[in-house]
Amino acid sequence: MNALLVSTKPATMQVWREELLALDPALDIRLHPESGPVEDITAAVTWNHPPEDLYRYPNLKLLISMGAGVDHLFRPPGPPPGVAVVRLVDRLLTTAMSEYVLLAVLRHHRQDAGYRALQARREWEELPAPDTEATRIGVMGLGNLGADAARKLAALNFQVAGWSRTPKQLDGIETFAGADGLMPFLARTDILVCLLPLTPETEGIINARTLAGLPHGAYVINAARGAHVVEEDLLAALDSGQVSGATLDVFRTEPLPREHRFWTHPNVILTPHAASITIPRSVAPQVIDNLARLREGRPLANVVDVSVGY
Amino acid sequence: MNALLVSTKPATMQVWREELLALDPALDIRLHPESGPVEDITAAVTWNHPPEDLYRYPNLKLLISMGAGVDHLFRPPGPPPGVAVVRLVDRLLTTAMSEYVLLAVLRHHRQDAGYRALQARREWEELPAPDTEATRIGVMGLGNLGADAARKLAALNFQVAGWSRTPKQLDGIETFAGADGLMPFLARTDILVCLLPLTPETEGIINARTLAGLPHGAYVINAARGAHVVEEDLLAALDSGQVSGATLDVFRTEPLPREHRFWTHPNVILTPHAASITIPRSVAPQVIDNLARLREGRPLANVVDVSVGY
Repeated sequence: MNALLVSTKPATMQVWREELLALDPALDIRLHPESGPVEDITAAVTWNHPPEDLYRYPNLKLLISMGAGVDHLFRPPGPPPGVAVVRLVDRLLTTAMSEYVLLAVLRHHRQDAGYRALQARREWEELPAPDTEATRIGVMGLGNLGADAARKLAALNFQVAGWSRTPKQLDGIETFAGADGLMPFLARTDILVCLLPLTPETEGIINARTLAGLPHGAYVINAARGAHVVEEDLLAALDSGQVSGATLDVFRTEPLPREHRFWTHPNVILTPHAASITIPRSVAPQVIDNLARLREGRPLANVVDVSVGY
Repeated sequence: MNALLVSTKPATMQVWREELLALDPALDIRLHPESGPVEDITAAVTWNHPPEDLYRYPNLKLLISMGAGVDHLFRPPGPPPGVAVVRLVDRLLTTAMSEYVLLAVLRHHRQDAGYRALQARREWEELPAPDTEATRIGVMGLGNLGADAARKLAALNFQVAGWSRTPKQLDGIETFAGADGLMPFLARTDILVCLLPLTPETEGIINARTLAGLPHGAYVINAARGAHVVEEDLLAALDSGQVSGATLDVFRTEPLPREHRFWTHPNVILTPHAASITIPRSVAPQVIDNLARLREGRPLANVVDVSVGY
């Protein structure tokens, strides 16, 4: 038996099954928790599946994240030893994430809060014109998502820099790397965009110390994972004015609890983890492709380095 | 005498004088209305100057618009016969206009009004993901501003088409032209962006007939001139739902009168003619350059075709 386990929200699982079967009607698909005999499962495509459950499948060889992020697979105890892990890399996921970032950047840059307040008061008043070429954006994380957002922002004439764990090169974009590069990167960043993978190293990376390293009045955009942010530290920076505002798509606890101050903070714009949503039809072909590679013993695509967790 | 007349808002005139003198201290600059002997004036750089006033200067040879738009120079009686007319073409003006258009497009495309309402109610709810590659944007006007906006929208994977008076070609952008091309262009346009020059031909081009030619629920962005829009027709289309919303920077009467319905319409986002503002420091060099061309009898740059008014 060569069965594929699919696990995510029930309604979404049905869509995944349809899209995968449309491409390969011979697939043996099992929707969690109705996986059948545990020996059957050789591959799994999952989102927010309990990691320990995967240890029940003795023949599991391939674990496919249902998104670009794979941190959900690395929560303790992490993926079972010897199981290959791959992510989705999708033009539509990347496009949607860059749209989210551009909207948040432009809204802040073009003083939209000020203009909305003026309209509400029916006041005709021109605010000082922003200086795009003097506005410094810093993108944390230069994977597929971060690199695309950085390039699109640079194409709009912003001064864009990027920071990543290991040194990277991108045309037209100043890059910083590692622990030594972080504070210099923050010191030149007016608008901080977090698109990092979530790992033990990046958990809580947006905290009192790093927020204090930004220029006074900097803006923060987080579309990566809620756990990148120490939320109380960000609230304190928003209250003091060290951070002038934030656009947040992700939170420590999701759904964001109704009593959380982010909901009502005047300088916080939030969305319900909706910046970039996997569309099964768009990514089903790469799942099929990786299953074929597994079956035929060819190298897998979009492999995650299990030793670093991204 | 070879004097340059400068005419705009008083505070702005002072900035213009400083920036021009910084580049050429020998310039003889006169700020309207203190122009000195009318015979002295050979060139003028103006914004919203009364056109008939320019007939008082017998030696006027060159009229420089203080922006990309030149319609303010063509209000009756229009520029004096035999006077050359040039516009400003400025990277910063173009950049700022494209930012405005991108912000308006992305805000609508990413269902921002819906997400703002959800945040206000502290409701965590994902709205249906928009399909960028299926979203058809139509840019009216393919001059410097329209072409730049169209290219930047196409780079974000929208389906972009353009319409202009005379046929134009742009890589990756479907183009329509002339009266015959207008209705087919509108029929395939989900988001209409107006960046046309204002001429007798384009005055009132956004009206009941053309709005009805858009797909039901289309979105309208006007950052060109207020007179492109028949405002009552746009309000009727907004009220009926034929047009789902509009972002407007320009109006028939500016400042927009306090009692105008645009201020309070739930589906109108407006700004006070602030999409793209000329920064004297950025454009002073091209004014100096055209004055030198005039003096030396060389061809002028960025010449306006007086016969068509743009």
